[in-house]
This record gives sequence, C-alpha cells and structure tokens, in this order.
Amino acid sequence: MSRGIAVVSGGLDSVTMLYSLLAQDDIEVVSFNYGQRHAKELDQARLITSHLGIPHRIIGIRSFGEAIAHGSSSLVNTDTEVPEGSYDDENMKATVVPNRNMVMLSMAAGVAIASKAQFVATAVHAGDHAIYPDCRPDFMRKLSQAIKSGNEGFIDPGFFIRTPFIYQTKTDIASLAGRLSVPIELTWSCYKGGEKHCGRCGTCVERLEAIHNAGVTDRTPYADTEFWKTAVNK
Amino acid sequence: MSRGIAVVSGGLDSVTMLYSLLAQDDIEVVSFNYGQRHAKELDQARLITSHLGIPHRIIGIRSFGEAIAHGSSSLVNTDTEVPEGSYDDENMKATVVPNRNMVMLSMAAGVAIASKAQFVATAVHAGDHAIYPDCRPDFMRKLSQAIKSGNEGFIDPGFFIRTPFIYQTKTDIASLAGRLSVPIELTWSCYKGGEKHCGRCGTCVERLEAIHNAGVTDRTPYADTEFWKTAVNK
Repeated sequence: MSRGIAVVSGGLDSVTMLYSLLAQDDIEVVSFNYGQRHAKELDQARLITSHLGIPHRIIGIRSFGEAIAHGSSSLVNTDTEVPEGSYDDENMKATVVPNRNMVMLSMAAGVAIASKAQFVATAVHAGDHAIYPDCRPDFMRKLSQAIKSGNEGFIDPGFFIRTPFIYQTKTDIASLAGRLSVPIELTWSCYKGGEKHCGRCGTCVERLEAIHNAGVTDRTPYADTEFWKTAVNK
Repeated sequence: MSRGIAVVSGGLDSVTMLYSLLAQDDIEVVSFNYGQRHAKELDQARLITSHLGIPHRIIGIRSFGEAIAHGSSSLVNTDTEVPEGSYDDENMKATVVPNRNMVMLSMAAGVAIASKAQFVATAVHAGDHAIYPDCRPDFMRKLSQAIKSGNEGFIDPGFFIRTPFIYQTKTDIASLAGRLSVPIELTWSCYKGGEKHCGRCGTCVERLEAIHNAGVTDRTPYADTEFWKTAVNK
C-alpha cells in the first residue's frame, strides 16, 4: 500500500478515480476553490470524502483566478457567458484558465511532500479535448520531472503524477463508476450552479453521453434530459 | 522590448532584478502572500512598484501554506522558531515550504499567458543554497518545458523562465543594486517582522555580508549590525 494525494473536484471522473484508488492505497484528498462561479462541486466533494471518512483539504486559489480574470476565461470572469453545447474548440476555449492544472498539481505535490506521499493522482482522461494541453501525457511527464528536480532530497525518489485514466475515455470511466458502485448522483459536473445539473453545458452533455454509452444507472436529476442527444458530435 | 512578469518578494534580489529588467522590457510585477508570519516584504514591494508606476498583483496563497502547515516549515507554522545564524543546512531546512517556488512560478506563468507575456523572471541566484533544489538551473529548465507543454497553443512559443542571477552570487547582485541606484533601504529581507531588520536571521546575515562585500552604501537600519560578522561561514 502506498500513500497518495488525489485531486478531486467532485465531478464524476475524479470521484470515480478516488473510489478506484481507495481499493489499494492510503489516500488523502485535495480540492481547489479557484473562484468558480459556484462551489457546488466542492460541497459534493466534501460530502463524499466525509462519507468515506478520509482526510480532505480544500485549498483556496481564488486570488489566482482574480489575478487572471482580465484574461478570457468564463470560469473566473463573470462577465463572460458559459458556453452551451458540445466541447468543440470554439466553445470551450472560453473555459480555459491559463495554467490552472499546473497550479493545482504543484500545490498537490507540496501537500504530497509534506505528507510523505508517493504520488499525486489526477483524473485527466483521453477524452479531455485537444484544446487542453495540460491534460496530455507529455505535460504530465514533464511536470513529474520538474517536481522531482525541484524537490530533490525532500520528495520520495519514486514520486510521480499518477494518471490512471489518461488513456481511457469518459465512457470507460462511467463504466468503472458502475462497477465500483460510485454514487454518481452525488458527483457534480455542471458548469452552472443551479439546483440541478443543467443538462446543456459542455460537461453535462459529455457526462450524459458517457453514462448513456456505458449503460450504467444514473439517479442524478437534470433540468434538461434531452438536449445532449442533439448536442453531441456537433 | 518584450513583455514579462517579474516575481518580486520585496527583497534585495528581486527588487534589483526588477530595476535591471525595467531598463529594457515591459514589466508587470507579481508578489505572493503565502502565509508569511509578516507582510512587511509585501508592503515594501507595493511601495516600490507604486513608486515606479508599474502594475502589481499580489496573489494570496495562504490557504496553500495552511494546507501544508502540519509539515516542517517555520515560514508557515507559527509553532516553529525561525532559526538564527548562517544558512547552514541544519538551520535552513526548517524554512523550506514544499514546492513553494513551483507554485509561485506556475501562477506567474498563468498571469504571463493571460497578459501575453514572453517570460516570467525570478531572482534565484547561485548563492541559494544546496538545500533549495528549486533554485537550480535543472529545475528551471524542466519547469519551462512543463509550462510550454501544458499551455501549447496558448503561450508564446518562445516563453521561458528568465533567471538573470542564476549564475551570480548575492554579492554580484548587491553590486548591481549599487550601479542601478536601487533604494536598498526600501527592500525587506528579514525573516522576522520587526520594526527594523533583525540583523541575525539567515537572510539578514546573508544580506549584510553581500552588501559589505560589494562595498555599496546601505541606509537600512538593523537591530544588530555586528552579529553577521561572526555568523557567516559557520
């Protein structure tokens, strides 16, 4: 059994990763509040880790979001609309917060070093689209190398960024969630902060499609259960 | 003229770097509040950028410091004494915040991408001791590679982490500060948050020695002006 830090947003992917890691490793969870428009996913992450009885830290990096808010991201800039529909490049570029993944993984690595953990795990997957270079194997490899170099003597020599889903699709993850009995309805994917998942934003569409294709049961309530069928593969 | 983000703590090194960069580049300044025991250096950084009339963002990452406070660092854990005397390994290991440099440079890179800047500059120098692996050329090279990989398509293809002092000593920097007429007395180096620089902590000792060796004028008041002479090279 090794010790690791799991970066968990509260979404389907990271929660499924958490369940799969817990089967064999000693896990602490780190989540980030980077100035999302809503904290719903963090609430859900807290609920899930509390249910599982595992340590959970939420690190606030809202100030980073604010510093870059004059950029183009709709996730930190409330003046920009969240795009609806599929994950096509044009739409989703507006949701990229510059270097966000690296900031979060660098902090998770700091926690890992303090906790004498051997890895940081992130739920990036093959379906993360071409517009997210910080979800690619090349980045994860270079990031691991930088972390090990910058913390030589303080970090476990075998430390690495663990990416169990990097060659899997979102449908693969949904299938795994079914096999592991992950409480899918407790996870939160929607970019909007409503009472229910909207069913129309990019992540809702992606989630609904993956769950459908995997054929798993989903008790999540959605405001719109039909939109995704017309939005995918646009 | 290129555009860059300078990481400035308010200390002698980073302020001297700022003055040297301003001679040829378009510079914005980023500072970090990571839960230092005192914010004196940030106040001084603010004073200096205000005097120079250049943009300055202070990004709060206190929450990161708190998340790792159960680790071993005296900079974020107020239960641990700040060591006095020279920068020998035993003393200074207590001041290492895991992966702090990487967290700050990753955030500065995010700001650089949002600002369409070509570089992030950091004032690490050859005298940063062997216990700080995140001040070494190998780390800076790997970090630049990770940042470029993780932001491909969004970042200037020529982006790099600029480290103008990485092969210079602190005495070289103090000499440059003299030539550039840097207001040394406005910079803040002391690890303690007193009215004056204590003159006894590791950074005070290092600062006093460098300024002495460079033979430059220093109007900074110190609580103890003699201690450094016996503390160095212990």
